[in-house]
Amino acid sequence: MLDALFRPRSVAIIGASNNPLSIGHIVMQNLLDHDFKGPIYPINPKAKYIKSLPAYASIADVPDEVDLVNISIKNTLVPYVLEDCGKKGVKFAIVHTAGFKEVGGDGIALEKQIVEVAHKYGMRVYGPNSQGIQNSDPEISVYANFTFVPMSPGNISIVAQSGGVGETLKLHLYNIGKGIRMYSSFGNEADVSMNEIIDYYGHDEETRAIMVHIETLKDPKGFLEVARRTTPKKPILALKAGRTAEGISAVASHTGRLVDQDTLTDAIFEEAGVLRFHSQDDMIKTAIAFSDQAVPKGDRVVVVTNTGGPAIIAVDECMSRGLKLAKLGAKTKETLKKLVFAEAIVSNPVDVIATAGPEQYGGTVEALLKDPGIDSVLLVFVTAPFADCEGIARKLNALGKTAKKPIVCQVMTIDKWANVVRIIREGGIPVYDYAETAARVLSSMTQYGKFVQRKAPVYKKYKCDTKRAKAIVKQHRGKGKFLPQDDVFDLLKCYGIPAAKTVRITKKADLKKAAKKVGFPLVLKVDAESLLHKSDVGGVALDIKTERALVTAYDGMARKFSKAKPAFILQEYMKGGREVIMGIKGNEGLAPTMMFGLGGVFVEIMKDVQFRLAPLSNEDAMSMISSIKGFPVLEGVRGERAADIDKLAEILIRLSMLGADFPGIEEMDVNPVLAFPKGKGAAVVDARIKIG
Amino acid sequence: MLDALFRPRSVAIIGASNNPLSIGHIVMQNLLDHDFKGPIYPINPKAKYIKSLPAYASIADVPDEVDLVNISIKNTLVPYVLEDCGKKGVKFAIVHTAGFKEVGGDGIALEKQIVEVAHKYGMRVYGPNSQGIQNSDPEISVYANFTFVPMSPGNISIVAQSGGVGETLKLHLYNIGKGIRMYSSFGNEADVSMNEIIDYYGHDEETRAIMVHIETLKDPKGFLEVARRTTPKKPILALKAGRTAEGISAVASHTGRLVDQDTLTDAIFEEAGVLRFHSQDDMIKTAIAFSDQAVPKGDRVVVVTNTGGPAIIAVDECMSRGLKLAKLGAKTKETLKKLVFAEAIVSNPVDVIATAGPEQYGGTVEALLKDPGIDSVLLVFVTAPFADCEGIARKLNALGKTAKKPIVCQVMTIDKWANVVRIIREGGIPVYDYAETAARVLSSMTQYGKFVQRKAPVYKKYKCDTKRAKAIVKQHRGKGKFLPQDDVFDLLKCYGIPAAKTVRITKKADLKKAAKKVGFPLVLKVDAESLLHKSDVGGVALDIKTERALVTAYDGMARKFSKAKPAFILQEYMKGGREVIMGIKGNEGLAPTMMFGLGGVFVEIMKDVQFRLAPLSNEDAMSMISSIKGFPVLEGVRGERAADIDKLAEILIRLSMLGADFPGIEEMDVNPVLAFPKGKGAAVVDARIKIG
Repeated sequence: MLDALFRPRSVAIIGASNNPLSIGHIVMQNLLDHDFKGPIYPINPKAKYIKSLPAYASIADVPDEVDLVNISIKNTLVPYVLEDCGKKGVKFAIVHTAGFKEVGGDGIALEKQIVEVAHKYGMRVYGPNSQGIQNSDPEISVYANFTFVPMSPGNISIVAQSGGVGETLKLHLYNIGKGIRMYSSFGNEADVSMNEIIDYYGHDEETRAIMVHIETLKDPKGFLEVARRTTPKKPILALKAGRTAEGISAVASHTGRLVDQDTLTDAIFEEAGVLRFHSQDDMIKTAIAFSDQAVPKGDRVVVVTNTGGPAIIAVDECMSRGLKLAKLGAKTKETLKKLVFAEAIVSNPVDVIATAGPEQYGGTVEALLKDPGIDSVLLVFVTAPFADCEGIARKLNALGKTAKKPIVCQVMTIDKWANVVRIIREGGIPVYDYAETAARVLSSMTQYGKFVQRKAPVYKKYKCDTKRAKAIVKQHRGKGKFLPQDDVFDLLKCYGIPAAKTVRITKKADLKKAAKKVGFPLVLKVDAESLLHKSDVGGVALDIKTERALVTAYDGMARKFSKAKPAFILQEYMKGGREVIMGIKGNEGLAPTMMFGLGGVFVEIMKDVQFRLAPLSNEDAMSMISSIKGFPVLEGVRGERAADIDKLAEILIRLSMLGADFPGIEEMDVNPVLAFPKGKGAAVVDARIKIG
Repeated sequence: MLDALFRPRSVAIIGASNNPLSIGHIVMQNLLDHDFKGPIYPINPKAKYIKSLPAYASIADVPDEVDLVNISIKNTLVPYVLEDCGKKGVKFAIVHTAGFKEVGGDGIALEKQIVEVAHKYGMRVYGPNSQGIQNSDPEISVYANFTFVPMSPGNISIVAQSGGVGETLKLHLYNIGKGIRMYSSFGNEADVSMNEIIDYYGHDEETRAIMVHIETLKDPKGFLEVARRTTPKKPILALKAGRTAEGISAVASHTGRLVDQDTLTDAIFEEAGVLRFHSQDDMIKTAIAFSDQAVPKGDRVVVVTNTGGPAIIAVDECMSRGLKLAKLGAKTKETLKKLVFAEAIVSNPVDVIATAGPEQYGGTVEALLKDPGIDSVLLVFVTAPFADCEGIARKLNALGKTAKKPIVCQVMTIDKWANVVRIIREGGIPVYDYAETAARVLSSMTQYGKFVQRKAPVYKKYKCDTKRAKAIVKQHRGKGKFLPQDDVFDLLKCYGIPAAKTVRITKKADLKKAAKKVGFPLVLKVDAESLLHKSDVGGVALDIKTERALVTAYDGMARKFSKAKPAFILQEYMKGGREVIMGIKGNEGLAPTMMFGLGGVFVEIMKDVQFRLAPLSNEDAMSMISSIKGFPVLEGVRGERAADIDKLAEILIRLSMLGADFPGIEEMDVNPVLAFPKGKGAAVVDARIKIG
């Protein structure tokens, strides 16, 4: 429970000072400026008064209980001060001071020490190296933070790993007159964690949307759990930095932490229904819409405009972001035709033309909101000097207040019509500068709408021989090596994953017996840990039809790879079928990431690949398969037959069960899986597993 | 010459009125408010004075010469008024009035008529259905337009097909206190064209950047010519609407015009060095940078920040937009380390930390500008309450004024520090709200920098048998049909394009003779206009090794396709090689578009394909080939040998010569071309041509 942090009854400022450039002073000023509802106790051994408030030499001298302290004194003094706070019964200590884990060396020990001191007294540490917290709840109004953006009440809560980014997020809400609910930039996360904060926001009834900025996920599993229980109630909008190699290395030098994989972030966000943004602007603009607007039930958007061009830009952007243009119902069209001027275009976009007044523009929006074929409304509105723009705004205001579908708006205007913008915004309709922004916002809202309507996942329970699988895995645990091929194929068998018939031999004497088992035509492959890309080096002979040809191929490879002392694989030769690749990537302390794509070039060069967390539900597997760009290849292009997609999904699910059962699997590549035509199944031809 | 339009010595307003909601009134108000430097003549048969200026019953009554008239009377009266204007010697008539070509029917004839009337007198028509023009040159200061965004002098000129978009572009320059040079939204383009306007801006010395909004390119060839001669002098930034199918159909219903192919636009922009934007915001923000900043000479960016997080976001965005992080020179590092505080990070991004003052922050930027390994500078700056922010701003102002490299900036601040933003902007450094914006701007500027450094294209002059080619094409001209295969292969031969040996036969009697010519193994293909995708329907038999097998295959196909009365193709069977596809798409009145991609799925599903206009220079061909995402496939992945890329480029160039020589080619697909390993050449295996 973070109540004493975000809803403190009293705050003490350790390091309070009359120097207006000091953090202690600025925090105190912020608390005073925002009319904090409890007592403020400046602590300063040298001053009698700070900003007209009586100062205390030590926290011990404060006559009443203290919920929260803000600390901005020298790093090495923090542990001593925390002892005093602990004795006093303080509940939370925000440590602004830097010079802890982020500087390495002694800082690491010092950070550990302050947490230990705090926990000894049941006190929690927020930070160190942190900005602070804010809560705009008028009953509290706490601004225990040294930033400068003024605070006013709202329903968007923010948590930012970077204070600079957090400030940017607050700033742009402030610039359009929008408040926030709670704010937090938590620094080194030594004790109070981002996940706890998100969880707290999730339980706060006044918070309608949560914006998160992440540089590294310290506890991915915890994040997944918190996000999973929060997103059904309210959207989490997240910006995760480090999506390019250079960005990742910048994060590393900034936070001094190991870096999460970007693909893992995507998989976690997908699983938990977190909306990922790559731009602060898009995230802020979307949060604004969520703060007042209904969540769309589907992807059919209508565009209404009183000037043509920007509406077309809106359509382009909507379409390229996956929305669909709603088809207006016959009844709606009839209503509109009666409403609008003769020159208007009753289609989608609806162009009511610049002379439209409240009846034409507002009436149109009203009629469209009633059309069951429409899920969201995007308005383009220029304040034409010859139209009753305020009248239109008032009408939109009324519609915005009652609409069960989201309405977003681009308004083109200047100060002269500032009132128009104000009236529309007061109706809860977000006003943006550009149609593109409005389109992107609706697209993100629609994505969230799909998420909240997502059915509970169905996990198929295939029967697997986990006992045998355990025995195989146990043999290799702790070696950090790739398994021999027969064990790999045995593991697949344990999980009911079809594969080409495969026999491994270690000496030539077994060659003919093995060939009999497998049958001709067959494939001969070399098998050695040092030869991972065996087909690249001539370690694979396909379509061997006779015993004689087999012996020749064997002798050739045995000579060629004699140094590697390889074993050999004989495998049933399978022809036809579309190649796909599946994979497992282990994540420490978290379920592994599953991978799916068409093989080779499609994965390595086109990067057309999907990631989800194991285990996969049926919907997960189908969505992975159908989300790759190359999906039409599996559906069959140009009259070709569709591949057995159901079987691919089943294999993917079974594989994810294997992954979930054995978190020790560092990586597994199943490449290729051959998918035969619909109804004909699929089979693994090659696979490798590394167990840590 | 559009001088009398953009620099009129006098303006008459036909339709001037005392009704403040009328267009005539608003235009007059705009002219007066912006202090037009010549006489204004309101024309109104019923009023004696309009806005205190003497009104004239007819243009004929105006005592002096009139350069420009603005007309906003009923559409059917326009031709009569134009007669009077013509007689008076008016040079340009801006027709605001709608109800012409855009409404179809009589409007089309009316539009033709007004142009005819005007041309009779050597007068030009601007519009109809147009907003108007503006020129902020203080010597003229003409606001002959009915929009509402106030005008002030600047060096960005705007031409917008949509008035609503034009207004948006002006608006956001105005909002940050930035002026414009000239503005134009030209409506139906019945006479004065967008291309003329761009050309005029191109010749205007005060214009440093041109923003263009296009819905349809009425005259692509003219655009190409104008853009080609403008972009070496100043950047053209363009937003072309209709990039999705739905957007295209919205454009069509909006403008009533046939729609250009989006790919043609890309090819034209590429050829002419026009920067294409998909967002108004990005276009505006980039124009602002061009208006004051130097063009970068390369792609190496440095990020400087006084707060960590946003800089990482900047890095992510820079990298994903193709920029590179500059490596700081040893000397630069040395200088910086002496300058900045101990906690600062001297790397890229450079984090000077929040306590940095003018010496630390400004000094860092100064040192970086001197580093020859840096091409552009992105600043992130939060106005930390404890730093001398105005001092930093003043230092940046001075650097901005003299820098030979572009500097762009994200500033995080509130009104309290408005001065800081003003001072930085006055140094010519654009200030943006978000680091992402700054990164995208630098990326676009870098793209332009590459363009202006582009060497003059080298066109290889391969010898071709154009005489024979002409004879072949002549045979088929006007039929709008696909050519028989032997003519297709003959055409390829005329242009020296290597192809598999191919013989076409029309009767079985010729089968064996043909087989002898081609040699075994060979391919048998059916050839009939009705069977375009012959391999999909079993019309191709590969790798036929014997005469007997050939006869069997022939008989089978002859039976199967008897209805189509097909001819047959015998072709040398080529094995190995990587498949690529090339194509020609004819463009009326313009050179054809050339196409290149890896075949099949890569083109049809992954849309990994490049377009350029014919004829191709050597650089064009190489850039087409290397710009596809799948290029590594041709370079050779995983130890495979590289394909003969030089030969592919040669074939592409030769094909582009064929395309350029015969604009009558509606479409040509060369699919596949087999590219053999480097040095081993490439050959066309199949091709089809349609001549219109």
